[in-house]
Amino acid sequence: MGKSLTAIRQEIRENKWTGPTAGLATGYTQANLVILPKAQAYDFLLFCQRNPKPCPLLEVTDAGSPVPKLTAPGADLRYDVPKYRIYRHGELVEEVTDLQSYWQDDFVSFLIGCSFTFEHALMDNGLKIRHIEEERNVPMYITNIACEPAGVFHGNMVVSMRPFQAQNVVRAVEVTSRFPSVHGSPVHIGQPKQIGIEDVSKPDFGDAVTVKDGETPVFWACGVTPQSIAMSSKPELMITHAPGCMFITDMKDSQYSVL
Amino acid sequence: MGKSLTAIRQEIRENKWTGPTAGLATGYTQANLVILPKAQAYDFLLFCQRNPKPCPLLEVTDAGSPVPKLTAPGADLRYDVPKYRIYRHGELVEEVTDLQSYWQDDFVSFLIGCSFTFEHALMDNGLKIRHIEEERNVPMYITNIACEPAGVFHGNMVVSMRPFQAQNVVRAVEVTSRFPSVHGSPVHIGQPKQIGIEDVSKPDFGDAVTVKDGETPVFWACGVTPQSIAMSSKPELMITHAPGCMFITDMKDSQYSVL
Repeated sequence: MGKSLTAIRQEIRENKWTGPTAGLATGYTQANLVILPKAQAYDFLLFCQRNPKPCPLLEVTDAGSPVPKLTAPGADLRYDVPKYRIYRHGELVEEVTDLQSYWQDDFVSFLIGCSFTFEHALMDNGLKIRHIEEERNVPMYITNIACEPAGVFHGNMVVSMRPFQAQNVVRAVEVTSRFPSVHGSPVHIGQPKQIGIEDVSKPDFGDAVTVKDGETPVFWACGVTPQSIAMSSKPELMITHAPGCMFITDMKDSQYSVL
Repeated sequence: MGKSLTAIRQEIRENKWTGPTAGLATGYTQANLVILPKAQAYDFLLFCQRNPKPCPLLEVTDAGSPVPKLTAPGADLRYDVPKYRIYRHGELVEEVTDLQSYWQDDFVSFLIGCSFTFEHALMDNGLKIRHIEEERNVPMYITNIACEPAGVFHGNMVVSMRPFQAQNVVRAVEVTSRFPSVHGSPVHIGQPKQIGIEDVSKPDFGDAVTVKDGETPVFWACGVTPQSIAMSSKPELMITHAPGCMFITDMKDSQYSVL
């Protein structure tokens, strides 16, 4: 039996767990994290509203409060993520395991839905996820699909790819359509060149996975998009989770299904 | 055959049509409108993010631009709503048919999903909508359900009510669940007292409708909520559409279905 959410959060809080969260606290919804000063928060909130597939917002905190009171009222975003990345003017300057010395009274935290949620739903429906089978990170690609710009934030969508046999593609669409607040249905099926991906075996982030004969690559909008966008927009200060080291909420994945 | 969207929008723009929009441009998505100066826009955007059932955002314009470039790029929100209401400090001070003399360079417009969209879907599924049969406005009630506050905006949810025979209640849930960006599934079924409604025959807004023997009242979060909230929060200046006189977008209702 796995550890309880409370136990896992405590280990993360005490920096006893500083690694990836995949597979931890099964059933609980994990989230991408973006922290920005209030001065940039309106533009970023508007960016997320205009781009709900790559940037599905689970919660936006009150300025200055590290507590996600709607999705994890007992948590503290300064400590409860295993590893954070500090970006200044779009450049990664440091990785840290808590934000004690970085926290500002004007910080707004954005919790953004993560593909782990719909991957669990896909597996519950009997579909196998290749990168999980091969114990790799999901392959991700910067596409030629422009996000809708908002204020200072602009750039192209990042997608993740999962290959399926043709007969499973339809079910993958159906299952993920039920989760619009965690990326929802795919943004593209097959034909990677049409969205600017020259070679699916050379992802921009994550690892390549095997695409077998007769399989179709299926592409979903990816939660790395907001980080990629924010980085290219070079805000003075931005903090995110480190890749794979997500925030674990109190919500259950199934609560994000609309049907 | 009904008039085209282009023709209808032109009549509205020229103040030849200044009345309700129900039944106009069938199939095109109609929207509630809230306009606020940029200084209040962050709090209101956050309020909508936290309360997606009453305040499902279809689009938020760039500050100063009257053009909803994503949902109706050829439209102008200063002219293309039949009738507007001007509120100062939460009080209705004037109704006007265009915003020429009111427009400010810092105005942000919020287009919020409207129940017309899911009513069309319900009717396409063979369900009859009582207030449409009785040619009345939908009955609406202020509930005891607190919205999640955000900045200066706080208050209770407004719901609309449609009665259905028991065997149709399930289908009504299924059909509207597919439209999370236009209020989505009901927030309450039966038991009006539990949400603070003492008498369904006495709505706070709109008209009472017949509830027949054996029918269950079904309650959906209502697009009047943001106006009600904004009014109770008394911002210095807020502009909305007049009740029933919606903005008609270029989008088709079916495009807002997730499945």
